[in-house]
Amino acid sequence: MEYEKKYDIILFHEKEKGKNFLSEVEGKNPLFICTIGNTQVAKIPGISAAGKFPEITDYTPPADVELLLLGSCKCIQGVPVTPEGIPTPALITMSALRLANIPAIVVNGGTRIKPHVPFIDVGGEPGEDIRTGKAVKNVEEVLERAKIAGENFSRIADYLVIGESIPGGTTTALSVMLAMGIDARGKVSSSMPDNPHDLKTRIAEESLRISGIKAGSLTNDPIKAVSLVGDPMMPAFAGLVLGAASRVPVLIAGGTQMGAILAIIKALNPGVLKNIAIGTTRWIISDAKSDLRGIVSQIADIPILAADLDFSSSRFEGLRTYERGFVKEGVGAGGAAIAAMMKSKGSISRETLLGEIERNYERLVQLR
Amino acid sequence: MEYEKKYDIILFHEKEKGKNFLSEVEGKNPLFICTIGNTQVAKIPGISAAGKFPEITDYTPPADVELLLLGSCKCIQGVPVTPEGIPTPALITMSALRLANIPAIVVNGGTRIKPHVPFIDVGGEPGEDIRTGKAVKNVEEVLERAKIAGENFSRIADYLVIGESIPGGTTTALSVMLAMGIDARGKVSSSMPDNPHDLKTRIAEESLRISGIKAGSLTNDPIKAVSLVGDPMMPAFAGLVLGAASRVPVLIAGGTQMGAILAIIKALNPGVLKNIAIGTTRWIISDAKSDLRGIVSQIADIPILAADLDFSSSRFEGLRTYERGFVKEGVGAGGAAIAAMMKSKGSISRETLLGEIERNYERLVQLR
Repeated sequence: MEYEKKYDIILFHEKEKGKNFLSEVEGKNPLFICTIGNTQVAKIPGISAAGKFPEITDYTPPADVELLLLGSCKCIQGVPVTPEGIPTPALITMSALRLANIPAIVVNGGTRIKPHVPFIDVGGEPGEDIRTGKAVKNVEEVLERAKIAGENFSRIADYLVIGESIPGGTTTALSVMLAMGIDARGKVSSSMPDNPHDLKTRIAEESLRISGIKAGSLTNDPIKAVSLVGDPMMPAFAGLVLGAASRVPVLIAGGTQMGAILAIIKALNPGVLKNIAIGTTRWIISDAKSDLRGIVSQIADIPILAADLDFSSSRFEGLRTYERGFVKEGVGAGGAAIAAMMKSKGSISRETLLGEIERNYERLVQLR
Repeated sequence: MEYEKKYDIILFHEKEKGKNFLSEVEGKNPLFICTIGNTQVAKIPGISAAGKFPEITDYTPPADVELLLLGSCKCIQGVPVTPEGIPTPALITMSALRLANIPAIVVNGGTRIKPHVPFIDVGGEPGEDIRTGKAVKNVEEVLERAKIAGENFSRIADYLVIGESIPGGTTTALSVMLAMGIDARGKVSSSMPDNPHDLKTRIAEESLRISGIKAGSLTNDPIKAVSLVGDPMMPAFAGLVLGAASRVPVLIAGGTQMGAILAIIKALNPGVLKNIAIGTTRWIISDAKSDLRGIVSQIADIPILAADLDFSSSRFEGLRTYERGFVKEGVGAGGAAIAAMMKSKGSISRETLLGEIERNYERLVQLR
């Protein structure tokens, strides 16, 4: 499929708005923020690519941000990989940020393991299984604190790029979207080629039932929706956007989980939506088993931009596997790649990015 | 005494270097960072202005940064005050940052009470009494993490202004300076007009003795000096400077405690000292009972700049009392005032600052 592009960035949805967003940030200095959290949902068999050891998902978010800030992980050996050995998308994010000299900050919405790098504490705690009906504690407070951080960062950065790392996050996103009246059934993405939609929908619907809410009954109460069936990344992420987007552009970097973030923002301050674009990867927009556009168009006229990454020519099998529907996105990989291209006015291309990713892959994965 | 000034900023020491530093930052956008911590030293009777309830010093740093970020405190009612009712210098800092629209971030070196605002966790813990010989845990790790944060902030801010809030901090500073060969006896400042030099020196010397070290024996080992007889603010503060000052100017905002910070930096990376200036208040440089210049000149040729604040004409007794030697400095008050003047190219003067401080005083203290 041929897409209209700016540099190696696909204008996938709301093209004119997407072009305007890119013009506004071209050559500018962004701050990349990675929000992290854990939810027990990741440990439900079959939900995430956790394999035989679901506890390993506790280590993924801290290891991802260690990779971003240090260039290697501290809380685990090597880097996070899927059971098939495919490396974390944080490898893409880190490579993009390093190439373009973009600073990064971590905001911890609630993880079981604390990263061994500086992180912003916004008072959050790890999330529970959404079938308990008490998924996230302290949502309003975390959102308010993250908002303060977002306001302050918006005064020094030209714009923000915000990503996330939370295993199991598409199922909690589906649940929050259902509660808020967005029909995302069969539309959320997966890090596995075989997207377990039936399982996700069953768990999401069961969680709503246990919480005593109907699809759409919490359209105007995102705090309650997240508290009941969300995850701890969400209030941190949404708070940052709410604090920053009235002052500077914000590229929300992720796949279908961004639908839940947009729904929260729309309910709390729709005026800032005009300053927001989604930054993701080609693997997400070309995925036949999820539908980001179908989700976003139910919420607001938000442009979707996708980094036109292509690993098919990579020297490494672990990277070529991205082309077969594994991983796809995460840790703001697509948004970080877009930001690197825009900061360098296109001189960082998908080729230069792949070269840097391969160098880091070799250093971190191949030779360990 | 007549001083040479730029706007309402006194060029007190190393005037030419001070002028150059100010030229470099004029009209630029700084990031203000407040480092915080607690040490049990604050609870030694007579050391800090804690009055009858030494536990109250646990609340001062979190309350100070809440005031900076929210405009009011959450963990206490009102604002931190001395036993005489004189308000925290955070009132000055907050007023300066607000007037000049300067963003602020908190880095927590280790407090007993967590602030109800976003803060950066660098893995620190509250400090012990320095007479235990194990004052601060995890010094090297905290320093490394703070350095990463400093590096990242230096990529988006034009320059950094770093302040501190840690009750009892001049005694730990004295101890670290003694261990590192700087004779600061009788030279450190106090928030009280009657500076208890004899008590501070006795505690510092006793701490060195208990730790089995001699004055000057740790000149080249700041990690050990802080671990044995320092406080948890120090590695956070020094790490931030070490991470940022190779790239951007850094105004280290405080009084005589900055001597300990400079000694640590000089031992670890003397090359960055040329990018550093001290920003303080007129109350510090005109204090007959301490000697900032006498401390700094033992370490390096660092300019000392002082905000020429004058509260003698204030409507409020609580502020006029600053002119009688109470409080003097803290929470980066002098540096924040300097940054506000420089960002506004002098249109924020000591008069406009006093007006804003009085408005905030009235709102927070007078009418509570």
